[in-house]
Amino acid sequence: MDSRAVDTVRVLAADAVQKVGNGHPGTAMSLAPVAYLLFQKVMRHNPNDPHWAGRDRFVLSCGHSSITLYIQLFLGGFGLELEDLQSLRTWGSKTPGHPEYGHTAGVEITTGPLGQGIANAVGMAMASRRERGLLDPDAPQGESLFDHQIYCLASDGDIEEGISSEASSIAGTQRLGNLTLIYDNNKISIEDDTNIALTEDTAARYEAYGWHVQTVDWTNAETHYAENVRAVAEALDAARAVTDRPSFISLRTIIGWPAPTKQGTGKAHGSALGDDEVAATKKVLGFDPEKTFEVSEEVLAHTRALRERGQQEQDAWQQKLDAWAAANPEAHALYQRLEAQELTPGWEDALPTWDADAKGVATRAASGKILTAIAPKLPELWGGSADLAESNNTTPEGEPSFLPTDRQTKMFSGGPYGRVLHFGIREHAMGAILNGIKAHGGTRPYGGTFLTFSDYMRGAVRLSALMKLPVTYVWTHDSIGLGEDGPTHQPIEHLAALRAIPGLDVVRPADANETAAAWKTILEHKDRPAGLILTRQNLPIVPRGTDGYADTEGVARGAYVLKDFGSADAEQFVILIGTGSEVQYALGAAEKLADEGIAARVVSMPCREWFDEQDEGYRNSVIPPEIKARVSVEAGVSQGWRDVVGDAGRIISIEHYGASAAGALLFEKFGFSADTVAAAARESL
Amino acid sequence: MDSRAVDTVRVLAADAVQKVGNGHPGTAMSLAPVAYLLFQKVMRHNPNDPHWAGRDRFVLSCGHSSITLYIQLFLGGFGLELEDLQSLRTWGSKTPGHPEYGHTAGVEITTGPLGQGIANAVGMAMASRRERGLLDPDAPQGESLFDHQIYCLASDGDIEEGISSEASSIAGTQRLGNLTLIYDNNKISIEDDTNIALTEDTAARYEAYGWHVQTVDWTNAETHYAENVRAVAEALDAARAVTDRPSFISLRTIIGWPAPTKQGTGKAHGSALGDDEVAATKKVLGFDPEKTFEVSEEVLAHTRALRERGQQEQDAWQQKLDAWAAANPEAHALYQRLEAQELTPGWEDALPTWDADAKGVATRAASGKILTAIAPKLPELWGGSADLAESNNTTPEGEPSFLPTDRQTKMFSGGPYGRVLHFGIREHAMGAILNGIKAHGGTRPYGGTFLTFSDYMRGAVRLSALMKLPVTYVWTHDSIGLGEDGPTHQPIEHLAALRAIPGLDVVRPADANETAAAWKTILEHKDRPAGLILTRQNLPIVPRGTDGYADTEGVARGAYVLKDFGSADAEQFVILIGTGSEVQYALGAAEKLADEGIAARVVSMPCREWFDEQDEGYRNSVIPPEIKARVSVEAGVSQGWRDVVGDAGRIISIEHYGASAAGALLFEKFGFSADTVAAAARESL
Repeated sequence: MDSRAVDTVRVLAADAVQKVGNGHPGTAMSLAPVAYLLFQKVMRHNPNDPHWAGRDRFVLSCGHSSITLYIQLFLGGFGLELEDLQSLRTWGSKTPGHPEYGHTAGVEITTGPLGQGIANAVGMAMASRRERGLLDPDAPQGESLFDHQIYCLASDGDIEEGISSEASSIAGTQRLGNLTLIYDNNKISIEDDTNIALTEDTAARYEAYGWHVQTVDWTNAETHYAENVRAVAEALDAARAVTDRPSFISLRTIIGWPAPTKQGTGKAHGSALGDDEVAATKKVLGFDPEKTFEVSEEVLAHTRALRERGQQEQDAWQQKLDAWAAANPEAHALYQRLEAQELTPGWEDALPTWDADAKGVATRAASGKILTAIAPKLPELWGGSADLAESNNTTPEGEPSFLPTDRQTKMFSGGPYGRVLHFGIREHAMGAILNGIKAHGGTRPYGGTFLTFSDYMRGAVRLSALMKLPVTYVWTHDSIGLGEDGPTHQPIEHLAALRAIPGLDVVRPADANETAAAWKTILEHKDRPAGLILTRQNLPIVPRGTDGYADTEGVARGAYVLKDFGSADAEQFVILIGTGSEVQYALGAAEKLADEGIAARVVSMPCREWFDEQDEGYRNSVIPPEIKARVSVEAGVSQGWRDVVGDAGRIISIEHYGASAAGALLFEKFGFSADTVAAAARESL
Repeated sequence: MDSRAVDTVRVLAADAVQKVGNGHPGTAMSLAPVAYLLFQKVMRHNPNDPHWAGRDRFVLSCGHSSITLYIQLFLGGFGLELEDLQSLRTWGSKTPGHPEYGHTAGVEITTGPLGQGIANAVGMAMASRRERGLLDPDAPQGESLFDHQIYCLASDGDIEEGISSEASSIAGTQRLGNLTLIYDNNKISIEDDTNIALTEDTAARYEAYGWHVQTVDWTNAETHYAENVRAVAEALDAARAVTDRPSFISLRTIIGWPAPTKQGTGKAHGSALGDDEVAATKKVLGFDPEKTFEVSEEVLAHTRALRERGQQEQDAWQQKLDAWAAANPEAHALYQRLEAQELTPGWEDALPTWDADAKGVATRAASGKILTAIAPKLPELWGGSADLAESNNTTPEGEPSFLPTDRQTKMFSGGPYGRVLHFGIREHAMGAILNGIKAHGGTRPYGGTFLTFSDYMRGAVRLSALMKLPVTYVWTHDSIGLGEDGPTHQPIEHLAALRAIPGLDVVRPADANETAAAWKTILEHKDRPAGLILTRQNLPIVPRGTDGYADTEGVARGAYVLKDFGSADAEQFVILIGTGSEVQYALGAAEKLADEGIAARVVSMPCREWFDEQDEGYRNSVIPPEIKARVSVEAGVSQGWRDVVGDAGRIISIEHYGASAAGALLFEKFGFSADTVAAAARESL
């Protein structure tokens, strides 16, 4: 019956892709036995409750083979039915071209952009260890309620993408024994035979990363093809038994097997097989070539028995959980809080405040103090940096690193359940690992690097936004103000380029107190990622709630009137809008203008996305539509600011690359000062 | 004397960083013997002519250690003097924080963003082979004028970044025997001991890529430190002798050696050592701790003898070149053309044209036909795709692949001197390899992937723009129009995000003929990269030079009046501005509006950067400032369009992620049609 079920998978894959006319049938056909083995025999999960915290996780890194996953979700009874497979890749279906998190029950994470899934799985494996450490640190290995496995299926493309190299090296250092990666080594990608581009010994590469490596060859050294499923099952058993290293299983397959003419070709990878080939495949498998989407009742009854088995497993787990909860009321309260994604009540009382100070502090330094202050209140908050901990100020003081015992150093101690992450200089993997951590459970991850290197991680940041995952990117050294490192390190276009990403909040506080308000607002959001943009250099700390200056309540609204300068009945009125380090120039200009009899309003606009969400009344109260004289000032490209300042407004920006010199000098050379803002204001009037 | 010179390097590095107060002294000190060995003993180059085509190339992938390179350029006499070292990292100096291409003689490429340099070096090694193949294919290995070596120095950070994994795997497949990578294995990065993040066996990893791997350990298994320069020299000799594989030399060093207290620490990596430590280091080395920037005349005379040796080598090479030129006049003419970066006269006559056709063709398909047509005229034009050749239409028909003999496949034949590149699914390395190819010499490289995966390669694209390198990115599948692959594959924010990059031309042609004009303009530029944005789906081919439609001359100006619809004396006049696939909706709307008595001008705007460069007169002739009724239509975010349409204008855009369904349906669902453009026009009036 299992064998018939596996062949049913192949037929469904061929039919589903053929029906819509495009898609990726090949991998789904050849990996049918593996996917079936995992979903029906190996993984612990319950189709009735795809969110069960005790479940094993499955990541389909080769997201283009989404039908591989959908068919298992259909057979196992996770909520997909035959008509869902029939509407593959069509408007409104539960079965889009690539698996989408939050859209289809049983899909653990959105995949498709290659390599991401491997890094997501690494993040899940890390999250699993951290969550266990928070809730049940003393249970023996493998005996905790919170011990489970992470399985990931990857293709040639995943292996080729650099992000997989980054993430896999981290996984080796982190000794992620709960992670198993199955590599479908079919030697075919879109450009057909991978000999033109992939000749490395991938298994040896994974050994070099410190993984436990096994090889299964269904081609039997290219002599004859036999799907030795038992060998895969044994390899999975062996992988599970190795708990001090992640496991890599290189499985040699023939893509599209057993399609008679297209197996082992690039054609089977990314296009429908064609009616004739589908029919011929059905004949090979003993199916009626005239029928489509043929699933026998026996097969479905057999595979849907998973619902009962899964329920029994979850029930047993729940009993244990109840016993554990009774014995560990504090840990259980934390567990419930994490599951609900609620922050510790009153946590925000721990947020520091700063007194007005002209010399000021860097917002990155303020952020570091904030993390140190709130870390004890929010154990779910954890993160680190891509080798720039001291520069990004991402380490809460005194907190332990997340490191296996033998990876600790003089500078960073901790343990396997620590909370300070060390990604090495691997920004892209960092982003995808944060996504994996967040998709796994209730913790709140963050990761830091220089803003300019947000370029290295956009692939992952976009997926945070697409999945609406509340991960926080800490991007410091946010402008030419970073100084001597010069143009390669100075962000110019990055604020605009990040704001362009739908669903990402780009938050650039103007001083230390705005930074605290920014962290507060970011952590209160559960449904979106944010990029927190911080300075290397000191920024003056603005007085608050005195002398006409507003407090920081307005930060959460994205923009607010920081201070109105000059007489209310002045004949001329101008609005000066700044973000981050340039708000100080707006303030300086406003004073000058007021001295000239021009009323000037300074608007601090730390987050344009938050401001755009406010109602029109509030927005108009901050920037009255009838006041056309407006100036924006931000040390980045002007792109996008015309919407704010209008045709009559002036934009103070930088449209070219920076230079290597002291930051203060660069601001002066490139036209950022109270004088230039004041001059632009006069022009705008 | 060499030993004193090497110690002089260390002292200069410490002094230069100490003077400016920030920078990276450690690597420059410990790698002083290696840099000196390369520049003074190993590499063939001539300080009098840093552009000599026969020179070996040096890439400092760890660009933060720029002083390593600057000191060698000073000692060798490439144009830097002591005062340049003294003005390290200051405004206007020749010695910025990171090495900058085109700024300092002897700097082959801009580095700093980690990992890029390794991929650049791979690109240079590929370019060297291709150039040799174009000019001197029949010379025995190692005996051509165009045979030379590429050396690259890399740090832990370079090794950690995924781009190095991508590029190094390609280098193995490509059997780049002319490439040697020296890895400074000092086990220290900014977060100090790399045991927290880098525990892989990097040498084994490179063996897995198919490289020739050697190890030199100056710590002698952590027992005693001895700078065995001879061992490095021998390893370099051995590397040169291996011509069928790239070479990797793992060199175990102690960073900052011999600084007495800071050697082997993260502090020596990225900060000035401090006056006391600098003085103590000088004592260790037998220098006067009271003096700074101490260079003895003898040392300088000794090292500057490189000028004479280099000149002799170049003179000898030039004699051979003259003899070769006489014997190979055609090849020599090509050589001169490549050196001058001039295109073949009349090449543009080969560009295809298309007749008007409502059904049309995809611009990606048009681009493929264009490449096929011009390939014979422009042998310098070469490129490929990140495993999407058939989708990106990047393969000129009938042209050979650039592949070692044993890497050819049924689908792709060719040879080591071929011109079709196969990057595998490695977008980031592709971009950096293109930069390396272009920085190496006179060929013109291009590379393709889906537009959405421009995210994976932004780190490299930004450097193309910063260096003003004329590489061409072919980004197809440019909108929701790609259809079923869904939101992970549908670009939404990418046009805006790419336009934000200073110095990058983003070119989105509206039909097949605009695509030809776009390629023409792009290839005529020598001083900047371009992204060519192409559709998956068919686009109607607009009539040209008839019925009021303009020809494609205006493409080069970035925007032009495609056609004026309606009566010249209509009371109402609106300007409809579209790019790429949305121009057809502007045309459809204009017809509707004209029927209603509203005059409508359709402006096709394939490249905003080109349009911005036009004089005001031209710009105003296309979009008259007095006409405030304007509509823009583009299947991407609105960001940046307010500048074009003004306060009164309307922007038809998409501000959210796409969906998995047929492309035509998505345009309809998401509001792109002649009707929506016409409605917006009426609103704008």
